[in-house]
Amino acid sequence: MSERVLVSQLQSREDGPVSVSGWVETVRDQKKVQFVILRDETGAVQLVNPATRPDPEGGEQDAGALALTTLISEMSTGTFLTVTGDLKHDERVKLGGVEIKIANLEVAAAALPETPIAADSGLDKRMDWRFLDLRQRRNNLIFRVQTTLEHAMRSYWIERDYIEIHSPKLMASASESNAELFEVPYFEDKTAYLAQSPQFFKQMAQSAGFGKIFEIGDVYRADPSFTSRHATEFTSIDAEISWIDSHEDVAAMQEELLRTAIQAVADKHGAEIKELFGLDVVVPAVPFPRIPLAEAREIVTARGYEIPRTDGDLDPEGERQISAHVLETYGHEFVFITDYHPEIRAFYHMRDPETGLTKSYDLLYKGVEITTGAQREHRVDVLEVQAREKGLDPEHLAFYFDFFRYGAPPHGGFGMGLARVLMLLLGESSIREVTYLFRGPTRLAP
Amino acid sequence: MSERVLVSQLQSREDGPVSVSGWVETVRDQKKVQFVILRDETGAVQLVNPATRPDPEGGEQDAGALALTTLISEMSTGTFLTVTGDLKHDERVKLGGVEIKIANLEVAAAALPETPIAADSGLDKRMDWRFLDLRQRRNNLIFRVQTTLEHAMRSYWIERDYIEIHSPKLMASASESNAELFEVPYFEDKTAYLAQSPQFFKQMAQSAGFGKIFEIGDVYRADPSFTSRHATEFTSIDAEISWIDSHEDVAAMQEELLRTAIQAVADKHGAEIKELFGLDVVVPAVPFPRIPLAEAREIVTARGYEIPRTDGDLDPEGERQISAHVLETYGHEFVFITDYHPEIRAFYHMRDPETGLTKSYDLLYKGVEITTGAQREHRVDVLEVQAREKGLDPEHLAFYFDFFRYGAPPHGGFGMGLARVLMLLLGESSIREVTYLFRGPTRLAP
Repeated sequence: MSERVLVSQLQSREDGPVSVSGWVETVRDQKKVQFVILRDETGAVQLVNPATRPDPEGGEQDAGALALTTLISEMSTGTFLTVTGDLKHDERVKLGGVEIKIANLEVAAAALPETPIAADSGLDKRMDWRFLDLRQRRNNLIFRVQTTLEHAMRSYWIERDYIEIHSPKLMASASESNAELFEVPYFEDKTAYLAQSPQFFKQMAQSAGFGKIFEIGDVYRADPSFTSRHATEFTSIDAEISWIDSHEDVAAMQEELLRTAIQAVADKHGAEIKELFGLDVVVPAVPFPRIPLAEAREIVTARGYEIPRTDGDLDPEGERQISAHVLETYGHEFVFITDYHPEIRAFYHMRDPETGLTKSYDLLYKGVEITTGAQREHRVDVLEVQAREKGLDPEHLAFYFDFFRYGAPPHGGFGMGLARVLMLLLGESSIREVTYLFRGPTRLAP
Repeated sequence: MSERVLVSQLQSREDGPVSVSGWVETVRDQKKVQFVILRDETGAVQLVNPATRPDPEGGEQDAGALALTTLISEMSTGTFLTVTGDLKHDERVKLGGVEIKIANLEVAAAALPETPIAADSGLDKRMDWRFLDLRQRRNNLIFRVQTTLEHAMRSYWIERDYIEIHSPKLMASASESNAELFEVPYFEDKTAYLAQSPQFFKQMAQSAGFGKIFEIGDVYRADPSFTSRHATEFTSIDAEISWIDSHEDVAAMQEELLRTAIQAVADKHGAEIKELFGLDVVVPAVPFPRIPLAEAREIVTARGYEIPRTDGDLDPEGERQISAHVLETYGHEFVFITDYHPEIRAFYHMRDPETGLTKSYDLLYKGVEITTGAQREHRVDVLEVQAREKGLDPEHLAFYFDFFRYGAPPHGGFGMGLARVLMLLLGESSIREVTYLFRGPTRLAP
């Protein structure tokens, strides 16, 4: 393993013997010379072999050279192999200005000759063969961007003494609503439910005196919808902090977090994103614009779009409209929509005693909601009233109310969908494209 | 929020007005003076109030002072509050050499007067009231250690260009064995299964050309056992790397990873761990000792312990014995046990053609298994034979075999239980103590 050289290291390496490992992207099998484009996780390089074809006259030939030529001729795209050979810098080689003359070629695992998908296959077909689809440079980049984005967020939090938690996803009752809940038969004829969010348990950390916490983990929604933004399992980015004055403290943390994380992506992958996705990563300025929901609705209406929803919330087109307005007016891709009515918010959102509206926000990015954030109601008597107002069964929530009976600090937080952020950051059309293995109502494999 | 001062910052702060927030750990309500110990996520500080008691003679008194005294007298342990007052350095104060004279006290949420658990309550009782249990300094430290450990591991990987993945936990078939599998009724009368490990999907990343990947995420085992080391849901630390020569390359990565992560814990929390857990964090030297299983069995037998298992593997006492031997002989807390027979290993472990044994290891830490690592079989024809040998249904594994039909690199990796590492690192007796909210056959709440 120690001898392997990554393709990205070849250009800065001197001419001479070298060993590379990767898979076959293309083979050009010409009569006198064979070219193989080999790709690894860092790039692609041209391998070259002067072909030795069987002499029709039956003259004496190098058996090894004949065998190598045949091996390359018959080699399928996707075959994984290790090649040792002679590295040579040559300006005429378009691919990185280097090539390797093959001395030895060892196949690790040969691919079947027919590749079931092509780069332009439909999304569903590509998802059937996701492991092949992910070999594309664009797709590989998506997950390197994901890695950088997450690490930058975790580093931001850890530098500020946040504690990382892993809350359980098997629960005795619903975490958000009784709809869209996956049930799991459990021991002793009990039923467990898959967590729809870490909401209750990240609040528990506040009563536990943890102060500031974060979690990046999977959550589950038995959501039958087929939109480009919904999945039955997705990675949720969550944070919760104590001793806030309002949801504004949460928003201020989140915008700084996103600025830092997107800056890290721009620094590390900006050029490659430009090349492969054709867009510039815009690092957002802070503070992000804030618009109260009522005002946002007026702006959208003034733009000529009549919001069909009657509950006072924005619909997806309304979200696109208000984001377009913000981009035109403030040159900003993000906007916090604030001051939601309690009717369209979770029971645990704290309400402003003056306005009666919740101390909460949605965060839109390029026209799509990526977050709900709020100050939580930590006064258990108020919390119980609000739960009853929503028609929730206090008995099912007894364990949650307990979290606040033995003291609790004022606190708040947000949950953010990782795939949505990635989709929007990279200008993709669906979270399916940026999820390692998407799960939806009709998609459970591979 | 900006005005809040953390308790840990008080000592280095000049005397004068200050505001702190936290919860009441104790109240000493003396006739002439009241003391409150307030704790926040960073430490504890003494608050002091000269008591103003009602004048039995009915003389004129400061109503505010009277009210404050009464408030403190009636205050329950656990109540969360914000206090502003006058910080004063005073060597005579044992707790940090500072105290705050209360000027204003604002209760955020009062605690019920009877705290249901004490620090010395039984484990099960403490788990019922985990949010109170976690207020203990030791327990808070556990999760700060967890945070540091994980971040050090992720940083190690990211500095080496690993990609972080989030593999789905809803699967169409078992990931490890058909036993201990949670079933989830899914859409269209389908059944999903909760992933027992990310095994298949982290291998998929190898066929996808990702090169090196890691994942820290929850996995599920419908395991009816009640040992100190088992849970129905736990956080698994997984890595998988391409182009290895053998499992030795995986072991070399894992030992370096652990050395780095434990070093980070020792640096950041060593003194506090010593204080609260009474032990020294030992940063392991690399390489860790390696002992083939057959030799390990001989050593254990020579120590006078007869292993009852007949399948050739070590049992828990055998693991403790060989670890004791390694500690005595090499002064090392870790040991890789290698060369397991295929009968006691998963079908996907690669076998050494010379010995017939698997190219795999278990890693023991202080006498407990924390990891299985292996080179995987990437040649699909061999893999299918090995699966059939184990009596597995090739049809259920068809999607997995596909990962290797279109080319695959030699690869391997490991899975490691986060809670086991934490338990052993801190000398705790059960993973229940180091899991945020434990899940077991009879434990699904809170």
